Amino acid sequence: MRCKASVVVKLRKGVLDPQGAAVEGALRSMGYADAAGVRVGKCFEFGLEAASLDEARNRAVEISRRILANPVLEDFTVEVQPVVD
Amino acid sequence: MRCKASVVVKLRKGVLDPQGAAVEGALRSMGYADAAGVRVGKCFEFGLEAASLDEARNRAVEISRRILANPVLEDFTVEVQPVVD
Repeated sequence: MRCKASVVVKLRKGVLDPQGAAVEGALRSMGYADAAGVRVGKCFEFGLEAASLDEARNRAVEISRRILANPVLEDFTVEVQPVVD
Repeated sequence: MRCKASVVVKLRKGVLDPQGAAVEGALRSMGYADAAGVRVGKCFEFGLEAASLDEARNRAVEISRRILANPVLEDFTVEVQPVVD
């Protein structure tokens, strides 16, 4: 069964986000003064081949923990959907 | 009304994604040979002050188009939710 995984990796609450601060500065200087608390993260999409949706989800979580995210600094969320041909 | 916007910015289909290819190589070398078609994007979260959810959504789309995404190479999706205190 072909599945598609979407992983969103964000800095944990409380971890300083200089990239977010830079974007927030840009927003303010372009007239969006009410935009606040900008946080920047990464998202990953990839296909997986698995026997079931549960197996695919477990594999995607394992991949996220081992490779895509730094568990000390980052949180991640995983969504897995079957690919309908 | 306080709102929270989530913007996901991805490379358009067909645009080469060397970062995704690098991640895919890492996945393969770590034993996840079935992971295919890795694409890497960015996500942004920020707060907005607006009179209505529609106004907040329009502003978030404008911010995405003007600042967060490169419309030539990238697509984006915007989600806006009210912040409940």
